Amino acid sequence: MKPIKAGLLGVGTVGAGTFNVLRRNQEEIRRRAGRGIEIVMVSARNVAATTEKTGGQCQVVNDPFEVVDNPEIDIIIELIGGTGIARELVMRAIANGKHVVTANKALLALHGNEIFAAAQEKGVMVAFEAAVAGGIPIIKALREGLTANRIESVAGIINGTTNFILSEMRDKGLDFDTVLKQAQALGYAESDPTFDIEGVDAAHKVTIMSAIAFGIPVQFDKAHVEGISALQAVDIRYAEQLGYRIKLLGITKRAMVDGVEGIELRVHPTLIPAKRLIANVEGAMNAVLVQADAVGASLYYGRGAGAEPTASSVIADLVDITRLATADPGNRVPHLAFQPNQMTDVAILPMSEITTSYYLRVYVKDQLGVMADLTRILADGRISIDAVLQKEPGEGETRTDIIILTHQTQEKNIDTAIAKVEALDTVVGKVTKIRLENLS
Amino acid sequence: MKPIKAGLLGVGTVGAGTFNVLRRNQEEIRRRAGRGIEIVMVSARNVAATTEKTGGQCQVVNDPFEVVDNPEIDIIIELIGGTGIARELVMRAIANGKHVVTANKALLALHGNEIFAAAQEKGVMVAFEAAVAGGIPIIKALREGLTANRIESVAGIINGTTNFILSEMRDKGLDFDTVLKQAQALGYAESDPTFDIEGVDAAHKVTIMSAIAFGIPVQFDKAHVEGISALQAVDIRYAEQLGYRIKLLGITKRAMVDGVEGIELRVHPTLIPAKRLIANVEGAMNAVLVQADAVGASLYYGRGAGAEPTASSVIADLVDITRLATADPGNRVPHLAFQPNQMTDVAILPMSEITTSYYLRVYVKDQLGVMADLTRILADGRISIDAVLQKEPGEGETRTDIIILTHQTQEKNIDTAIAKVEALDTVVGKVTKIRLENLS
Repeated sequence: MKPIKAGLLGVGTVGAGTFNVLRRNQEEIRRRAGRGIEIVMVSARNVAATTEKTGGQCQVVNDPFEVVDNPEIDIIIELIGGTGIARELVMRAIANGKHVVTANKALLALHGNEIFAAAQEKGVMVAFEAAVAGGIPIIKALREGLTANRIESVAGIINGTTNFILSEMRDKGLDFDTVLKQAQALGYAESDPTFDIEGVDAAHKVTIMSAIAFGIPVQFDKAHVEGISALQAVDIRYAEQLGYRIKLLGITKRAMVDGVEGIELRVHPTLIPAKRLIANVEGAMNAVLVQADAVGASLYYGRGAGAEPTASSVIADLVDITRLATADPGNRVPHLAFQPNQMTDVAILPMSEITTSYYLRVYVKDQLGVMADLTRILADGRISIDAVLQKEPGEGETRTDIIILTHQTQEKNIDTAIAKVEALDTVVGKVTKIRLENLS
Repeated sequence: MKPIKAGLLGVGTVGAGTFNVLRRNQEEIRRRAGRGIEIVMVSARNVAATTEKTGGQCQVVNDPFEVVDNPEIDIIIELIGGTGIARELVMRAIANGKHVVTANKALLALHGNEIFAAAQEKGVMVAFEAAVAGGIPIIKALREGLTANRIESVAGIINGTTNFILSEMRDKGLDFDTVLKQAQALGYAESDPTFDIEGVDAAHKVTIMSAIAFGIPVQFDKAHVEGISALQAVDIRYAEQLGYRIKLLGITKRAMVDGVEGIELRVHPTLIPAKRLIANVEGAMNAVLVQADAVGASLYYGRGAGAEPTASSVIADLVDITRLATADPGNRVPHLAFQPNQMTDVAILPMSEITTSYYLRVYVKDQLGVMADLTRILADGRISIDAVLQKEPGEGETRTDIIILTHQTQEKNIDTAIAKVEALDTVVGKVTKIRLENLS
């Protein structure tokens, strides 16, 4: 059988990784796929350097539209990133009747609905395993491995940069700024780390997973996005003392509010019990925990970034497309797991209506009755307390931290209670609130 | 689109689970698959009881061959188990041009080559996600998710019964026989637990994974099979003190022996560093760790048995078949990941030629020079030592345990050294040897 022909847009880290893995393992891949997969054309900013890098094995051009318009090419691999030209290129590839493989989470989280609709109409596939959790085949697991299930929740460590920073903060007791600088020096964080540390990258990924898990459109604009830059070393330490670790989780789950079904979609630092497997995912590793009605809990762990792990997913998609290209388009795996005419419009809940547990740190004057005031406010809000940690004031100090772990309640209840707590004379400054998930 | 019609052979735990999940989530599944999946005929020993159980929704017959020969049925779900009548039924279903879904690891580990060849010839699919690690989509991950990779090794906790027993032995400091009885009372172990505790079930599963990982035929007869019934509580305790846990692992990996490629295929109790994620997989849970060249390490965790987790995999296979049924048979996912004409005949290595590290417990008379004798024998065999734990003799005792952890060596070297150690006057009885894998 003739090899399938791919065109590669962008030869950065992942593009070069894809090229290299495809070349190194070509024999292994052909033995599996039943036919060869060849990158016949590449677009890159620096044509000369890329020609040398690719060993003259394929045509290198400057203009990516030349690749997308090449009638000999069956599959376009988009690794340019961003939502500008990448969007134009992907839409044009689809219009040209080509299948697309992309690692571009921002593009799919923001414009996925438009892109998948166009692909559906043209009868082509847009594959994006590499867009979520790098080399972990989590899209395949959610979309094909768990088809029997009603999925209840997905919670993932899906940003390696922030997990590296949190692991280092905990291990070495350092503060955020110090660790961020080290991460940048080691190449674990970008020089402009905003997308990672502010949770945007994780929110792109969990937005895509929410669509696949629940059969809803991608709705990045509805996601709650909160990063780790405000997280303090002291809270990591207190969490540890209480048996918890703090991880940046992307969470999406079903919820019922006043008898109406809704979906939670949020990224934020989260306390999780230290004994959970996912709490022990350290450094730049990723892991996704899925709760579903038939299978129960299952977890998928591996490298969430890097040239070759991401290339692993890009190439798996190439092989899938090579296989499914001959299947009746109506019977292929749907882009978002559910048939396009079977999506639902269950609403994403505003944060005030989500339900979770909370870690609260209250900085108080060490006076009689403080604890009584706090617990009365929580009781009035019908928020029950799971644990309390009251620290003795330091030598010569008259103020101290009280840490309270609550049971589950709605976010609006806790916010009301916090406002009352902050109004107390004995409370100094703002209350620190971090959400807590038991993941059991 | 008309529903696809399945016939179910066997309504035991998994059969009933499949029936129930398919009924409960029929809407969710149809929204994904694009067409309904209906079990229209069931065979069971007790027709009356099964008719009641299935609510009269499908025809119940006594003779499974009636189901297999029913021309209206597209897919046969074989959940009878064993290698007798199940084999006949599966072969007849294939001959009748039907696709097959099975959870029968024994059947595939022993007769997979014959079954897959027949299916290939007939152009039908035999799907078996449920045969390995219950609800974890590990077959899909190995066969589709990691197609870009040269897989280096697969190591799994793939038997829940033994993992439950080992977790309890460690947690409670109890011996094997006591915990086995508890496991039987709790339903975690069968009344005849041989297949589980002697490692046969795990060997069936790792045999199937070895074929998929490396593109070799299934070769259960070449697997080394060693269970946990001889494992002593004292070794679990010493391992713990040295920072290790003991798990029953199914391991298959590439190896080079004197410049010739070979494959290791073995099941045995294994020390693994306590800090590894897989070392923290407790109770009846399963996990599979895969090392591959592009993606690095990835791990898949979930329930390895039980009605609904296994049903989750059975139904995922039903959906896959429903989708791929319209694809050109030459382009479907190959049964064993590699195209049938692309399998290799790399040999499974005899145990004497495998390479790993070792835990040795030597019971010695507490005399001067014992340690010198031991270390000299190991040095002569060019076996280097990683750690030693020498226990003081108990009050009034003159004998004690010496525990040695070695670096990697070939099994024949360690066996030669052990024979020499056992010949020493100062050594009492047999040396306890447990293999150790760093899994890094």
